[in-house]
Amino acid sequence: METYYAVIFTSQRTDEDGEGYAKMAEVMDELAQKQPGFLRIESARNTEGKGITVSYWESLEAIQAWKENSKHLVAQQFGKEKWYKQYNVEICKVIKDYSFIM
Amino acid sequence: METYYAVIFTSQRTDEDGEGYAKMAEVMDELAQKQPGFLRIESARNTEGKGITVSYWESLEAIQAWKENSKHLVAQQFGKEKWYKQYNVEICKVIKDYSFIM
Repeated sequence: METYYAVIFTSQRTDEDGEGYAKMAEVMDELAQKQPGFLRIESARNTEGKGITVSYWESLEAIQAWKENSKHLVAQQFGKEKWYKQYNVEICKVIKDYSFIM
Repeated sequence: METYYAVIFTSQRTDEDGEGYAKMAEVMDELAQKQPGFLRIESARNTEGKGITVSYWESLEAIQAWKENSKHLVAQQFGKEKWYKQYNVEICKVIKDYSFIM
């Protein structure tokens, strides 16, 4: 297994600005995928506004560059001001992986 | 930061046996929380059946013991036979964490 990294973003949405949030989330998804070192992204949000997004990256440098991307910084600011009641971020090194397909 | 570990479980549900699945998921949540070395668990599943669960643990040994828990082994078997179209598991070492509360 090649070394790779995961960013776990767990969040609780406010009730505000659903449309603006959805649009920004889509733009950020597309933007992340264009970043150097991006591997893939997985997201799920339930009907109570609890969401988990995991993005996977080739290196810690790639994660840092994405964190500092100027458009992403704007989204982060909106996130704090309007969209999220609460969030946690963990930056992780993947040690082992496996999968199952029916 | 104390060293700790995360297990990222990303899955796609089948349409089968919603009630049986919900019950087993609840029992597994409770059971995991009683395992030595358990820290916390976060889950979100969207309306299309895509789900992400992240459990956090004090050590790799704790993760291994939970993987081999006999009741959990039964649930894993049902998961493959009935509940999941597909899943991925990544076992990770958390390098850095931060959070925001409104």
